[in-house]
Amino acid sequence: MAVYTQVDDAELLAFLATYDIGDLLSCKGIAEGVENSNYYLHTSAGSFILTLYERRVAEADLPFFLGLMEHLARRGVTCPLPVPNRAGKPLGRLAGRPAVIVTFLDGYSVHHPEVAHCAALGVALAQLHLASADFPLRRPNALSVEAWRPLFAPAAARADEVEPGLRETVEAELDYLEQNWPRDLPSGVIHADLFPDNAFFLGDKISGVIDFYFACNDAYAYDLAICLNAWCFDEAHRFDMEKGAALLSAYRRVRPLDGAELDAFPTLARGAAMRFLLTRYVDWLDVPKGALVRPKDPREYLAKLRFHQTAGAFL
Amino acid sequence: MAVYTQVDDAELLAFLATYDIGDLLSCKGIAEGVENSNYYLHTSAGSFILTLYERRVAEADLPFFLGLMEHLARRGVTCPLPVPNRAGKPLGRLAGRPAVIVTFLDGYSVHHPEVAHCAALGVALAQLHLASADFPLRRPNALSVEAWRPLFAPAAARADEVEPGLRETVEAELDYLEQNWPRDLPSGVIHADLFPDNAFFLGDKISGVIDFYFACNDAYAYDLAICLNAWCFDEAHRFDMEKGAALLSAYRRVRPLDGAELDAFPTLARGAAMRFLLTRYVDWLDVPKGALVRPKDPREYLAKLRFHQTAGAFL
Repeated sequence: MAVYTQVDDAELLAFLATYDIGDLLSCKGIAEGVENSNYYLHTSAGSFILTLYERRVAEADLPFFLGLMEHLARRGVTCPLPVPNRAGKPLGRLAGRPAVIVTFLDGYSVHHPEVAHCAALGVALAQLHLASADFPLRRPNALSVEAWRPLFAPAAARADEVEPGLRETVEAELDYLEQNWPRDLPSGVIHADLFPDNAFFLGDKISGVIDFYFACNDAYAYDLAICLNAWCFDEAHRFDMEKGAALLSAYRRVRPLDGAELDAFPTLARGAAMRFLLTRYVDWLDVPKGALVRPKDPREYLAKLRFHQTAGAFL
Repeated sequence: MAVYTQVDDAELLAFLATYDIGDLLSCKGIAEGVENSNYYLHTSAGSFILTLYERRVAEADLPFFLGLMEHLARRGVTCPLPVPNRAGKPLGRLAGRPAVIVTFLDGYSVHHPEVAHCAALGVALAQLHLASADFPLRRPNALSVEAWRPLFAPAAARADEVEPGLRETVEAELDYLEQNWPRDLPSGVIHADLFPDNAFFLGDKISGVIDFYFACNDAYAYDLAICLNAWCFDEAHRFDMEKGAALLSAYRRVRPLDGAELDAFPTLARGAAMRFLLTRYVDWLDVPKGALVRPKDPREYLAKLRFHQTAGAFL
């Protein structure tokens, strides 16, 4: 949630002149997306989102992300559709940064998802996996199991500041995950960050999925495990069985899980918890004292990891 | 520029149910206004701005601000119009804060105003002064000359950290301003913060004036002096004669200045520089090390003060 870059109106007008989307009526920085600067853009042709890519998104990855959104939108997944400029290209430059304009999606994020939201998400996630199956570009998951130990190692010394025993817990879990991580599961392009912030609803119907900037090639069931962790725990970080069942059964009606995916799911759920525990922990170390941005609490994902360590199979 | 409060979707839906503005389609925190949390709100009835008032705006002042916007909008000044709820009241509560919904204005702020923008602003400011003449509520200017010394005194010790000699400069100028501050000038409701951020343009025509949360009763010519300082200096803080002349002559065509206002103007311009020098200096002291918000540079207004100390009459 941030606007990092102030866009000068003269630069903006010059940028918009390279598009065929009418005259500028309004442009306001919005608090959406963690990695980029986003603006609500209103022109005589309609509403759009203008995104400037900040340092955390590699420019070399943009053709993958933009191509994926276009691929999915053409197959009926409601996601932002990049708008090409007059030269036919989706990617331009504004304020010294790579910049795109995408279509505006109505809908709003649900802060406390109910069972019906989890079920709707399950359908949308499975549809996204089916729709991306023939997407030709590839992007490896830079935050999968082999990345976790190198991420943790340089930060391990301060782990017990977050919670006594955290370092030992993480290191033992990394041993487990590295030895037991499932290979050769059905794979393709996954969203990899489909938290409630990144799904829009109108009532209990999904109206859009946004923020594809962690999308990559990995096991479909790992994406489902990320969603289970993000959507199906309550505010005290306790698993909600009813929401979990709603998500999983809705997903499986659209894209059935095979035996290997079912067997692997408890380990995938532990790994999905580890991935967010680690990035939140590293971000938490990074924040200067007195800063106005409160980092997300890594202990939320420690609690979810502990649940999966003891829960065993629940599918 | 900030969003301070995260609004829960369930709370938002309950709040909107007290209004007759259709169904929620979208709500996004926007980077607009320094004192409050603002959201772009899209419903089936159109576009609006939702504002939550944070601690820096006194709740007792809200009837003045909201009544003023309604008064001005009814007299043809393009400013946000508060939307009454089903009980006929403009003010409600959301997320524990006073909250209003106002109409959405097209247009965008101009970062580097040109001569034509300064002229358009002059007309709009004079129209605003004429339109507010019969507004019945009153609010004293809490940031006028008698407030400046008490604002500076507790912070004076660190002034030379901003620039060597600042403390002495400010204290001598306060002596001058307190002895020479003009009284009994034509007065009424002034905007008191009409910086380029708070004016919207479409091309070189003003499409709206926003952010009335410093509005108060004071001399009209003081408001004009605030605008002169905010709009008619270049990025090196040098006065731009052509922009200044455009602003002042456009204003005077709509609302002529009398002899007392002309005589007082150089002192008003010094005071207008002092007021923003002091609040920026105090804000600058307040920001914790490492914070992500960069405070506005108080030295910009020190340069403008020095210009007015030596420029003398230029009307």
